[in-house]
Amino acid sequence: MKVLVTGGAGFIGSHLVDQLLLRGAGVVVYDNLSTGQKPFIASALRSENCHLVNADVLDRDSLRKAMDGCEMVAHLAANADVRRGLERPEWDLEQNTMATSNVLEAMREVGVKRLFFASSGAIYGEPEIYPTPEDAPLPIQTSLYGASKLAAEGLITAYCHGYDMNAAIFRFVSILGPRYSHGHVFDFVRKLLANPDQVHVLGDGQQQKSYLHVRDCVAAMMRAVEQQGQNVEIFNLGHDDVCTVDDSLSWISARLGVQPHRLYAGGERGWVGDSPRVQLDCSKIKALGWKPTHSIRESVEATVDDLLANRWLLDART
Amino acid sequence: MKVLVTGGAGFIGSHLVDQLLLRGAGVVVYDNLSTGQKPFIASALRSENCHLVNADVLDRDSLRKAMDGCEMVAHLAANADVRRGLERPEWDLEQNTMATSNVLEAMREVGVKRLFFASSGAIYGEPEIYPTPEDAPLPIQTSLYGASKLAAEGLITAYCHGYDMNAAIFRFVSILGPRYSHGHVFDFVRKLLANPDQVHVLGDGQQQKSYLHVRDCVAAMMRAVEQQGQNVEIFNLGHDDVCTVDDSLSWISARLGVQPHRLYAGGERGWVGDSPRVQLDCSKIKALGWKPTHSIRESVEATVDDLLANRWLLDART
Repeated sequence: MKVLVTGGAGFIGSHLVDQLLLRGAGVVVYDNLSTGQKPFIASALRSENCHLVNADVLDRDSLRKAMDGCEMVAHLAANADVRRGLERPEWDLEQNTMATSNVLEAMREVGVKRLFFASSGAIYGEPEIYPTPEDAPLPIQTSLYGASKLAAEGLITAYCHGYDMNAAIFRFVSILGPRYSHGHVFDFVRKLLANPDQVHVLGDGQQQKSYLHVRDCVAAMMRAVEQQGQNVEIFNLGHDDVCTVDDSLSWISARLGVQPHRLYAGGERGWVGDSPRVQLDCSKIKALGWKPTHSIRESVEATVDDLLANRWLLDART
Repeated sequence: MKVLVTGGAGFIGSHLVDQLLLRGAGVVVYDNLSTGQKPFIASALRSENCHLVNADVLDRDSLRKAMDGCEMVAHLAANADVRRGLERPEWDLEQNTMATSNVLEAMREVGVKRLFFASSGAIYGEPEIYPTPEDAPLPIQTSLYGASKLAAEGLITAYCHGYDMNAAIFRFVSILGPRYSHGHVFDFVRKLLANPDQVHVLGDGQQQKSYLHVRDCVAAMMRAVEQQGQNVEIFNLGHDDVCTVDDSLSWISARLGVQPHRLYAGGERGWVGDSPRVQLDCSKIKALGWKPTHSIRESVEATVDDLLANRWLLDART
C-alpha cells in the first residue's frame, strides 16, 4: 500500500509516517515545511519506501502528481493553532476547510478512494454530555478552528456519499509526546526556562483536559487502517482520564525542578474559544482492541523530556 | 432599523424584503441578480426605504459599503440548487461557505452585530430521528449543499462566540409559493406543460417531504426578528405534515387538468444526496407563537397557480 500523508513532516504526521513504514507501506510525505520539521522525518527518508514532496496542500497540481499510485491519503496538514483563530479569522477556513476541499478534489480526479482525516474534539464546542460521544447533539461552534474542522468533516462525508469514497475521521484531544511543538506544555516549558520563579496561567487553572500520547494516537489510527471500514467511520481519540491545567503545571514544574509562583489570569476559559472541559467517549475505537498505554502524567513528562533534549524546538516557533 | 438582505431579489429574500418594509424597516437589497429577479422587488423598490445594490456576496468592498448604517444582515444569498452539487463540487463551498465567511468578515469590519441566516434541513443528512429536532445527533452529510450550509452555521456560531455577535439560524424545509423558481413543482409543471401524457419521476415517488409556504416561512423569520434572542438561536422551519412526491404530483396534475402516465426512475432517493424523508421538529419556533397557515397541498397549488400566471419564470432558468 502506498499512502500520501499531508503534514507528514509535522508532529503527529511524522509519527504516522514512521509507523506506516514499519508496516511496509510506501509513503509520500507531503509537507510545505511551514510548521513541519525536516529532522522529524530524517530517519523516515532514509527508507527507499519514503520520499518528501515539499509543496502546499492548496497547490492542486502538486497534490495530484504526488497522489499518483497512492491507495490512501492521510490528511493531517492543518493550521493546528486553535488559540489564534480570532486574530486571523480566515486562516482556519483556508488552511483547514478549503485545503481539505482541495485534497478531496485531487483524490477524486486521481481516483484515490480512501482518506484518513485528523479532525478535532474542538468540533464539540462546549458539549452538554461528558464523556462526549461521536453522536453528541449537533454542537454550537466556539472556535473558528473547530468550525473549520467540522466544515472539513462535512465535506469529507458528503464526498464519501456522493463519490463512493471511504473515510476514517479521528477527533483528537490534544496530543503530547516527542516532536510536540506547540500547546500548553510547550508554552509552560519555555516560560519556566526563561523565568523559573513565576508563571502566568491562562484562566483559573481548573480547566479539565484530556491528553493522549502521540504513539497511542498513531497506534489507534493504525488499528483503523487494518479494519475494512464502512463508508464513513468517525472515532474519538482521547484518554478516559482528565487532568487540570494546575495538575499539568505541577508535573511540568517538578520535571524541570522549579517551584514557580502562579499568576492566574482568571476565568473559566484560557482564551475565547477554549473549552473549560474536554473529555471524549472513546468506546468506539476501544472496541477495535485499542487502549492508551501512557497515563496523562507520563505523556506530559515525556513531552517535557523531549523538549529539553531538543531545545531547538523551543526556538523554532515565534 | 435598517437591514441588508443578501439574495434580497430571490424567492424567499424578496418576500422577506416586503415584510421588513411593511414593518417600517429600511432595506438594502443586495443581489447580483444571477438567480434573483428584478420583477420580484419591483414593488419594494417603489418605497423610498428600499434600494438595490447589484453586487456579489464575494465582493467584500461592495458588501462593506452596502452595510454602512445597517443594524442587521439577513444572509439569504446562496446556491440553492441541492441536486447539482456533485457536478460542480466546489460551487457550494464557494457560494455558501466562503460567501458566508465574507459576509461575516464584512459585518465584523463594519460593526454590524446581528445576523439572520438561511440554513437548511439538508444539514441533517439522513437523520435517525423523525421529526428531527435542532439538537439531533451530529449528522453525516449526504450532500455538498448540506455540508456547505453546516460549514456556514459553524462559522456563524464561532463568530458569535468570538466577536460578541448574535445570530438566528433557520433550517428550512423546501419552500413553496409565489416567485418560486426551482425545485420539484417547477420541474413537474414545466414537464407537464410540454407533455401532459407522461412524466418521468425521480426515485420511486414515495420520498416523504415537508413543504412550507413562503409567507409562513417569512412570518416565522419576522417572529424571530421581534425576539431579543440569545447569542445564537437555531430554528427548524417546516410543516408538521409530510406528503409523498406522488401526492404532490397528483395535486399538480389536477391543477393543470392533466392525467399523465408516470415513469419512475426507481430507488428510494430522487438523486444522490436526496434525503428519502424530511420532517423537522418545529416545536421551538412554534413556542414563539408561530404556526403555518397553509397546508402542504395549498402550498403546492399556490405554486402551480403562480407559475401559470408568470410563465416567464418557467423560461427564466435553463
